[in-house]
Amino acid sequence: MNENFEKIQTLLEHKRYVPLIANLNEMNEVDVAHVLDMQSPAQALLLFRMLPKNLAANVFAQLSSSKQSAFLATITDRELAPILAELAMDDIVDLVEEMPANAVKRILAQTGETERQVINQLLKYPEDSAGSLMTTEYVDLEKQMTVHDALCCIRETGLKKETVYTCYVIDQNRFLHGVISLKKLVLSQGDLLIENLCERDCIFVHTHDDQEAVAAVFKKYGFLALPVVDTERRLIGIITVDDIMDVMQQEVTEDFQIMAAMQPSDEAYLETEVFTLVKHRIGWLLLLMVSETFTGNLIAGYEDLLVTATALTTFIPMLMDTGGNSGSQSSTLIIRGLATGEIQLHDWLRVLYKELRVALAVGGILGTTSLAKTYFINGKPLALCGSVGITLMITVVAAKLTGGLLPILAKKLCLDPAIMAGPLITTIVDTTSLFVFFNVARVVLRWPL
Amino acid sequence: MNENFEKIQTLLEHKRYVPLIANLNEMNEVDVAHVLDMQSPAQALLLFRMLPKNLAANVFAQLSSSKQSAFLATITDRELAPILAELAMDDIVDLVEEMPANAVKRILAQTGETERQVINQLLKYPEDSAGSLMTTEYVDLEKQMTVHDALCCIRETGLKKETVYTCYVIDQNRFLHGVISLKKLVLSQGDLLIENLCERDCIFVHTHDDQEAVAAVFKKYGFLALPVVDTERRLIGIITVDDIMDVMQQEVTEDFQIMAAMQPSDEAYLETEVFTLVKHRIGWLLLLMVSETFTGNLIAGYEDLLVTATALTTFIPMLMDTGGNSGSQSSTLIIRGLATGEIQLHDWLRVLYKELRVALAVGGILGTTSLAKTYFINGKPLALCGSVGITLMITVVAAKLTGGLLPILAKKLCLDPAIMAGPLITTIVDTTSLFVFFNVARVVLRWPL
Repeated sequence: MNENFEKIQTLLEHKRYVPLIANLNEMNEVDVAHVLDMQSPAQALLLFRMLPKNLAANVFAQLSSSKQSAFLATITDRELAPILAELAMDDIVDLVEEMPANAVKRILAQTGETERQVINQLLKYPEDSAGSLMTTEYVDLEKQMTVHDALCCIRETGLKKETVYTCYVIDQNRFLHGVISLKKLVLSQGDLLIENLCERDCIFVHTHDDQEAVAAVFKKYGFLALPVVDTERRLIGIITVDDIMDVMQQEVTEDFQIMAAMQPSDEAYLETEVFTLVKHRIGWLLLLMVSETFTGNLIAGYEDLLVTATALTTFIPMLMDTGGNSGSQSSTLIIRGLATGEIQLHDWLRVLYKELRVALAVGGILGTTSLAKTYFINGKPLALCGSVGITLMITVVAAKLTGGLLPILAKKLCLDPAIMAGPLITTIVDTTSLFVFFNVARVVLRWPL
Repeated sequence: MNENFEKIQTLLEHKRYVPLIANLNEMNEVDVAHVLDMQSPAQALLLFRMLPKNLAANVFAQLSSSKQSAFLATITDRELAPILAELAMDDIVDLVEEMPANAVKRILAQTGETERQVINQLLKYPEDSAGSLMTTEYVDLEKQMTVHDALCCIRETGLKKETVYTCYVIDQNRFLHGVISLKKLVLSQGDLLIENLCERDCIFVHTHDDQEAVAAVFKKYGFLALPVVDTERRLIGIITVDDIMDVMQQEVTEDFQIMAAMQPSDEAYLETEVFTLVKHRIGWLLLLMVSETFTGNLIAGYEDLLVTATALTTFIPMLMDTGGNSGSQSSTLIIRGLATGEIQLHDWLRVLYKELRVALAVGGILGTTSLAKTYFINGKPLALCGSVGITLMITVVAAKLTGGLLPILAKKLCLDPAIMAGPLITTIVDTTSLFVFFNVARVVLRWPL
């Protein structure tokens, strides 16, 4: 791939446009868009104008939105019209959603009346719904067609369809009757009736279903496309697997962000303004900082103890962090399990039992190791070492149970389980671990061993 | 979906097997496998035996591995052979990899000589390589065929192929010449030559490429299938998008686990033994616990200061956690950006500059808020409040720069950037924040304001 880019770059520098275009023409549109994205705006536009029309439209759909809006600001309406004519309906809708108002006006002016109606209809679906993901360019077959009719119909209309591999069988009211794959059509005899060949138990989603649920259906069944229906099961559009891969990536990125105590955003990091990044991060940091006041107040309540045994302070970071890390491990596994659907709400008791056993083992090992290390290596008094060991054990158990159960509780309360991740668990566990520590120490230190 | 399951359950309880099988026959194989997975072993086997042969094979491929191995232990060789004949090659390979030795022996005994050779070949590829993901059941067309010949060839051989939607054009040495979609074949005139129609600049992967890199290619181009070639660009197999969706999910789960300081594992949480979970978690916890000794030693070095100003201790948790959270936010965004390919190694200076500005703003807001809160609301001495505020500011900057750059450094050193996440960043930042705190306090507290 990189050799290709270098070749293009060399041809560009030497202004050898004829072999350059021949080369671009051979390349995948994603790569051509990548080449264009790396050029200066003027250079990119020059190249773009040299591309053949159908490639130009596909490349345009793949450009970064900053390049798209720069292009739209420069090209004439005469250049725009053929690009829009080649673009898939869902790509036009994405464009309309992302471009500034004056660009949108031009786009809508250059599309036909029927297209404009479809675009307006698609724009009405809530963001992140199945409706906002779908395209209306699918192959629909009527159930009384024969295989031969169907293949003719695909040959006539298929060129402008998002996929021809899954065809949807409808009746005269557009009620979704079933699906049939192009594979089955190609492999079947020409005189058979579609109605008898198609799969009746067809899986579909509704226009208002959340995109995360749609992605889950794709993952579960391994489909290439999925029909979208309205409340009366009339076929409205389809969603294809390539769009769903983007959704899956976006949903995972959001989970990562929420789990690291940020507001989720689907903007690319390098293209996000500093102000926006600050806005996404500051809220949780402030909230968690203020929550830590409780831990501070708790410590203040044990000042008498800390004055007589200042050595206790030196264990605070270790206890806090080990508690936090233990809790994060559990909450991460449970949040992920809930996201992939492997763990269900009704599994909470199994999670509790499993985490309890893991916590006892992990806590036991950590407590014993810490005791041995502080006593034999650091030569601290046994009472102190014992207090630390016991606290570790109790903290780990508390942290793992908290981390294991809070995400499930969040889901039960219809909150996003991802908020119950490391940062929040740590803050909750901090107070517990120090409370246990000071109380254990108070008791144990009275009977010095 | 759930109504369907209830109906099946009712029919099962009433032993109404005829309508039961009719219903199962209408359902998607994934759902049938789900129904079987929820039954007792005996009940599941009973149902499985009633399924028509081709559905049975597809359902078998979708069963959980515990059910698969239970089935294999019970069914006769006469029942096994037709299932294996229907199974796709990559599913048989997966089965052979997961089943116990005696089951594997029976599986291999029931497959034909040629199949056995292919299986053995596929088993040789390293785990997580493109070779281990691919299947050998693809449609290959010779370049001198016409469209009509090609469609005939697909009709004859397509039934047992993993996909017929992307066909691979080879020459007599199996050198990968190009690809052509079934869409293009169906939409083209019958007498055209494949050689002139197919796409020459075809994207492929090598047998030893890592599955993560393969997934990235799928995501980038939105392909349904990708050819796998050997070092001489001879076609060896194909990988289909449904298998890649599983890889994507698995890779993300591994990242989540590493970022929460665990050894990655692709076993399902609820099916993982307690001992295994302990083993995956204890290593990092021990390491991080011992690392925290440094922070403890640092505190011990300032015992004189802490004795005279015990109030300092109450701010330790807040400073540690805020530093850790600030660092986690940055490292999470960068780790994710590196994983999706949005951030490259050469972007490190842009990341540094962006994180610096974000950190100054976030640190400024947190520092000021903390100063105002502790001074006006908690009524602490200004010198103390000032020390905390200044420390917060410096800690946040240090944490965000550490969190932003360490993942990039890790990638540069060919380590997994995901290890540079919350837990490790927190441990590193702890020492910094307390070191800054005690030194600022020592200076400021000498000149009480």
